[in-house]
Amino acid sequence: MSTEGTILIGNKNVMNYVLATVIQFNQGAQKVLLKARGRAISKAVDTAEIVRTRFLPDQVDISTVKIGSEKVGEPGKERTVSTIEIVLERKE
Amino acid sequence: MSTEGTILIGNKNVMNYVLATVIQFNQGAQKVLLKARGRAISKAVDTAEIVRTRFLPDQVDISTVKIGSEKVGEPGKERTVSTIEIVLERKE
Repeated sequence: MSTEGTILIGNKNVMNYVLATVIQFNQGAQKVLLKARGRAISKAVDTAEIVRTRFLPDQVDISTVKIGSEKVGEPGKERTVSTIEIVLERKE
Repeated sequence: MSTEGTILIGNKNVMNYVLATVIQFNQGAQKVLLKARGRAISKAVDTAEIVRTRFLPDQVDISTVKIGSEKVGEPGKERTVSTIEIVLERKE
């Protein structure tokens, strides 16, 4: 059984990602990694905060938050986008 | 002389915040704290990444990234917004 899940935050409504995260924890995940790029970064933070404060209070915590950059696009048309990786972890 | 500065990321163009951050480092700051709420969170990450990779490469690093929530608005009309705090720190 997997104890770690990954969720890519994209264009859907934030509640989609909140529910996907809660489901992963309910299925036994110890950690869930939220990944986002560009404008979806704010939504990744919203997802983490809504799960932590409203859906699973006292059960999960923010473990780590990392930011970085990635190149996207075809060669010659590359541009750099910012990225975020948030790890939510079940409390002991 | 202050060795730590704070920059609030808001509605302006990202380059305004990049330049404000670079100026603080050039004036002797050891650390610069970038704070943002809501949709400006993505812009705070962009600011940090542009400073780190393009303007002051090999000179500053991301020291810590914290996310959280804040209540905003008048009593009775309160809503919760996500927040981010990114600390950029001069390398030794």
